Amino acid sequence: MTRRLSLDPERLFPSDPVTRGIARSLYAQVAGLPIVSPHGHTDPAWFATNANWNNATELLLAPDHYVFRMLYSQGVPLDALGVPSREGPSRAEPLAAWRLLADHYHLFRGTPSRMWLDHVFAEVFKIPVRLEPDTAEYYYETINAALATPEFKPRALMERFNIEFLATTEGADDPLTHHAAIRSSGWKGRVVTTYRPDSVIDVEHEAFTGAMQRFAELTGEDVHSWAGYLNAHRKRRSDFRAAGATATDHGFATAQTANLSHVEAEALFGRIVGGTWSPQDAELFRAQMLTEMAMMSVEDGMTMQIHPGSFRNHNQGLFDRFGRDKGADIPMRVDYVHALKPMLDVVGNEPDLTIILFTLDESTYARELAPLAGHYPCLRLGPAWWFHDSPEGMRRFREMTTETAGFYNTVGFNDDTRAFLSIPARHDVARRVDCAFLARLVAEGRVEDWEAAELAVDLTYNLVRRAYRIDEAPGSAAKGVTS
Amino acid sequence: MTRRLSLDPERLFPSDPVTRGIARSLYAQVAGLPIVSPHGHTDPAWFATNANWNNATELLLAPDHYVFRMLYSQGVPLDALGVPSREGPSRAEPLAAWRLLADHYHLFRGTPSRMWLDHVFAEVFKIPVRLEPDTAEYYYETINAALATPEFKPRALMERFNIEFLATTEGADDPLTHHAAIRSSGWKGRVVTTYRPDSVIDVEHEAFTGAMQRFAELTGEDVHSWAGYLNAHRKRRSDFRAAGATATDHGFATAQTANLSHVEAEALFGRIVGGTWSPQDAELFRAQMLTEMAMMSVEDGMTMQIHPGSFRNHNQGLFDRFGRDKGADIPMRVDYVHALKPMLDVVGNEPDLTIILFTLDESTYARELAPLAGHYPCLRLGPAWWFHDSPEGMRRFREMTTETAGFYNTVGFNDDTRAFLSIPARHDVARRVDCAFLARLVAEGRVEDWEAAELAVDLTYNLVRRAYRIDEAPGSAAKGVTS
Amino acid sequence: MTRRLSLDPERLFPSDPVTRGIARSLYAQVAGLPIVSPHGHTDPAWFATNANWNNATELLLAPDHYVFRMLYSQGVPLDALGVPSREGPSRAEPLAAWRLLADHYHLFRGTPSRMWLDHVFAEVFKIPVRLEPDTAEYYYETINAALATPEFKPRALMERFNIEFLATTEGADDPLTHHAAIRSSGWKGRVVTTYRPDSVIDVEHEAFTGAMQRFAELTGEDVHSWAGYLNAHRKRRSDFRAAGATATDHGFATAQTANLSHVEAEALFGRIVGGTWSPQDAELFRAQMLTEMAMMSVEDGMTMQIHPGSFRNHNQGLFDRFGRDKGADIPMRVDYVHALKPMLDVVGNEPDLTIILFTLDESTYARELAPLAGHYPCLRLGPAWWFHDSPEGMRRFREMTTETAGFYNTVGFNDDTRAFLSIPARHDVARRVDCAFLARLVAEGRVEDWEAAELAVDLTYNLVRRAYRIDEAPGSAAKGVTS
Repeated sequence: MTRRLSLDPERLFPSDPVTRGIARSLYAQVAGLPIVSPHGHTDPAWFATNANWNNATELLLAPDHYVFRMLYSQGVPLDALGVPSREGPSRAEPLAAWRLLADHYHLFRGTPSRMWLDHVFAEVFKIPVRLEPDTAEYYYETINAALATPEFKPRALMERFNIEFLATTEGADDPLTHHAAIRSSGWKGRVVTTYRPDSVIDVEHEAFTGAMQRFAELTGEDVHSWAGYLNAHRKRRSDFRAAGATATDHGFATAQTANLSHVEAEALFGRIVGGTWSPQDAELFRAQMLTEMAMMSVEDGMTMQIHPGSFRNHNQGLFDRFGRDKGADIPMRVDYVHALKPMLDVVGNEPDLTIILFTLDESTYARELAPLAGHYPCLRLGPAWWFHDSPEGMRRFREMTTETAGFYNTVGFNDDTRAFLSIPARHDVARRVDCAFLARLVAEGRVEDWEAAELAVDLTYNLVRRAYRIDEAPGSAAKGVTS
Repeated sequence: MTRRLSLDPERLFPSDPVTRGIARSLYAQVAGLPIVSPHGHTDPAWFATNANWNNATELLLAPDHYVFRMLYSQGVPLDALGVPSREGPSRAEPLAAWRLLADHYHLFRGTPSRMWLDHVFAEVFKIPVRLEPDTAEYYYETINAALATPEFKPRALMERFNIEFLATTEGADDPLTHHAAIRSSGWKGRVVTTYRPDSVIDVEHEAFTGAMQRFAELTGEDVHSWAGYLNAHRKRRSDFRAAGATATDHGFATAQTANLSHVEAEALFGRIVGGTWSPQDAELFRAQMLTEMAMMSVEDGMTMQIHPGSFRNHNQGLFDRFGRDKGADIPMRVDYVHALKPMLDVVGNEPDLTIILFTLDESTYARELAPLAGHYPCLRLGPAWWFHDSPEGMRRFREMTTETAGFYNTVGFNDDTRAFLSIPARHDVARRVDCAFLARLVAEGRVEDWEAAELAVDLTYNLVRRAYRIDEAPGSAAKGVTS
Repeated sequence: MTRRLSLDPERLFPSDPVTRGIARSLYAQVAGLPIVSPHGHTDPAWFATNANWNNATELLLAPDHYVFRMLYSQGVPLDALGVPSREGPSRAEPLAAWRLLADHYHLFRGTPSRMWLDHVFAEVFKIPVRLEPDTAEYYYETINAALATPEFKPRALMERFNIEFLATTEGADDPLTHHAAIRSSGWKGRVVTTYRPDSVIDVEHEAFTGAMQRFAELTGEDVHSWAGYLNAHRKRRSDFRAAGATATDHGFATAQTANLSHVEAEALFGRIVGGTWSPQDAELFRAQMLTEMAMMSVEDGMTMQIHPGSFRNHNQGLFDRFGRDKGADIPMRVDYVHALKPMLDVVGNEPDLTIILFTLDESTYARELAPLAGHYPCLRLGPAWWFHDSPEGMRRFREMTTETAGFYNTVGFNDDTRAFLSIPARHDVARRVDCAFLARLVAEGRVEDWEAAELAVDLTYNLVRRAYRIDEAPGSAAKGVTS
């Protein structure tokens, strides 16, 4: 049996007619605004080479841990889904893998992955029927045929998607070759990088030694002296800014910061690079480096993002066989109140600094994050992240942060994705959920309709440009949209 | 004044007419499905002897800590309510105790106990007026008269309630006499046991020594040697399976697991049975035994249930006088991410194992449990438990787990009750709340109506049968209901 | 541009017409009930001297950390807002400060501060236009002119606001001069004090030494002996009761209690007053004193309030310059289950004692607080507090506590404010949110309409009078409102 695929034009709006009417009208004002994507994990090589993608499985299934983890949770082996392992590419036939997705597509009912995938199928590929076992092969062939056309090359899609700013994420040891190629290509698309120095800060990271070596080569600094190491960061931050970066990103297990004296920091760094560190030293060094990065942000104006709270690679057996990013990163309880204080003692009252906090622990929204962001001038709240990047997650974010932090201490939406084709779907969900939330405030007499209209545009477009200083960076035309 | 008692046929459905209409239609498809009750605490003696119950107070008030704790919280003494103490039966006159319930019935406004009791009164006893001081005696007499009839014997009620599977819970030292009597009686009702070995695992449990002695007698094993102890578990698990059990249950204060070598485990066990254990040893042994039980479940196919997070007998004075299960068990914060890892390192990727996780700490739903169950093949999420077995609690469960774990990593409803007459009421609440949740998803364009119809049946009937392997066990006729 | 200011008469009611109709009808029954304010921080000098206030900035902006923290979070300096520092009064011109509020008033969209301020502007001052840059000066002059009139003196406003009971909060070292003046003035308004002995209990409090000295002087006791110290508390509690107090209040960082023997307590006290204490001693002494205070409440009948979980003065730089209460108190995770047990072991089963628990950690509502209050006779739940004193916060409070603790283990509303003019606004929000919650229960068939009507009056008026023993205290006319 084949069922029709069509997206409800009023999806994610509340059923109550009054509220739905307000949401519809707010959404109409923001649905067409350009996409600003300040934080994500797309591959800059796509935009540098502008090559066509190969097939549906390689593009939409095998690299997307949001998708394959759900199938894995119900017993489907990863190698059957085309996921490469440490031993090399999967031996699965791509169409067979795609059929497994179709066979298990009901598992995604009620999940954002399902909404995003259906949006990609319906809006990007214009497929008129649902994905189910009977349509698996039709899907596979239709998608592959489309992907082979010029209209589905990365740059063409970026333009079609109306993405006016797209940030990727690179390590401190990355030569930024693809970004250089993009910038020298004459293409007008604004694809920029983000400075993520975790692998040269976290001595417990498996890649630390190699990353430090490349860090030294790329900067010409003596990265084993404290002064040289800090200088290397300054140089690379400058390189990244030249490649369009307006922000840095930091993703350790905890939010711990430190405020060591120069002498203490130098001695700690000596233990780190000297190989005599303890686990406590490793944590303290990460903590101190967050504060160092914040101080450099005061100097160079880069917005700083802190993403703590994920227990990476929780499934040891899977990690041994398949490596990182296989859907086995599990959130943990996180403390911000004590952890951030050392850094805030140093930079908390800087009005020109922007530090964006993210969480996977929703119990911190109302208890810690909104009160912190509702007080400290440098703090802003990142949007509902990862597992919480979902309609219910976004609704909880607004319900639990707005009353204490207001809307203006938030920074719009992040898609945080490597699934390029889903970017419009993800932003569309966020816009709809925000409009639904605003509509409830209007219907309940809590904000005026004209305020909600301004807020809808601010949440979609203006706040993200301000928080990530997009209009201040080279290559930007200063803009702003008003309702 | 006497007020009419009648249950709103559309209770628990959202008020919005569109959503209510969808909920009504979904509910119509599941309201009449048989009840599967895979986890509970009814007394198998009821079904073995099939004797009539005595009176309203002894059946509905004195044994139900959900009910008497609320009266106690407002100053009503337990012995006035017919609750037996360590010194023996209560001296309260049963009608006087029942009058106290009627006098304080307003305390239950807005609670699930109120919904369950009203359902029992209206549907099981067909009482047409509300419980209030003026109707207390009428209630007492009406209920007692009904209880004396053949129609209100336990087996007759089980049939009337359309309960097709009912699991009780017994300790590892239980001779399973009542279950043997049930099975040899020729009665076709399927009442089975569940293996709960806490008292032979938790050396800090007051009953440990006696339980170990009976454990030895029942198995003929040297339960003071590590090999004999493990063999005794294997034998008893086999006995329980012969008495219909398809599952085990484990309820310690934490979710801690361990992954010790054989040598370490044996040495630890030596300290436990040798009486030289520390509190850390006691915890480590409970932790190791969860992993041992999981490994035995891989062998014998029993579904494993883990129920952590209750601080038992928090009220010391009350415990000294009245003993366990007096409404003074208080939930605590629980960690799953670190605690379960040792066990998951051993069995996490077993696709044929089912481990069902429960929580009393709702902050773990979206943060820990849904991400774990949305990845590990062996993990499933138990329903909203105990204090959260309520309309708002169930709604939060769905809102906080579905987007990450989906519906298919959940296992339907557990009533977990010793209040046999309330079983239909409890399942009815769960069906209504699930239909209301699904209706919202349909109204907001997040799932299709035909999907919601399939899901309603899956959440009510199919998922529980699958998770508890009810169709694989002896005595089952393999079935499944489709919409 | 000037926009009209008018409060939606149906604000905070759900949009669905059925539910809204029920909410409207419930609210009509409680909107006019007298205000009972059992916990707050207004200045008793206002009611003692009955002097006029000076101007809008000094009354509404500079002292209100709910308001100025939001502006500070977006980079507005505190001294520009009229906030005094340790060096003395702000040098800002009051009208210029007021203009800054007007310029940034959009920051409050969606916050309770915005609802309260608009209520004050529209209802107390009858201002017909919104606060915005163009109306800043008009607002400033209109408010100042009103404040100079007899109708805006504190006592006149208290009568106009229909506040029949208003508690302030004073330290154990306070001479209660203003309260004496109020009581000897012949004015019939009931303004009473509350006993808050934190500064003579918390040896880590900067004011401890001075407070102990005044404590000794006011009581004539040897407060450096354990017996004398406890006697001093008894005397001051008696003084406070004579000044109308019916309650005590205790606000430490944690909820830790202790149950030491007399000998242990005396030895600990010796270290505290002898200056040989460790941080662990300081915490243990606070813990022991909570239990001592509870035992004194058993003796003298004062209701006890416990407000834990705030990390005070988190912003060190701001604290150094501006002192306490500058919007930089940040909530922390709190444990109640283990922390309260020592105290509950002593007084938990006292039916005539009332201990009201508050939290800033919403994850404890359903997990810890509702189960504790739904069992222990002495425990009641305070309303949604501080950052959670907001429409969404109150809704979550009801949704997460009612099913386990019921309504009758809660105590009505606290405004907890120093912003006197906002008291009617705050109580009005609470009444509306409670009616909206009750309306949903009615619409979903969970309580009957007549029960909701009784509950609305109980939540607004009767429960607070009972919990704070307002009718038992001298000066009260025993009353009660029934629907």
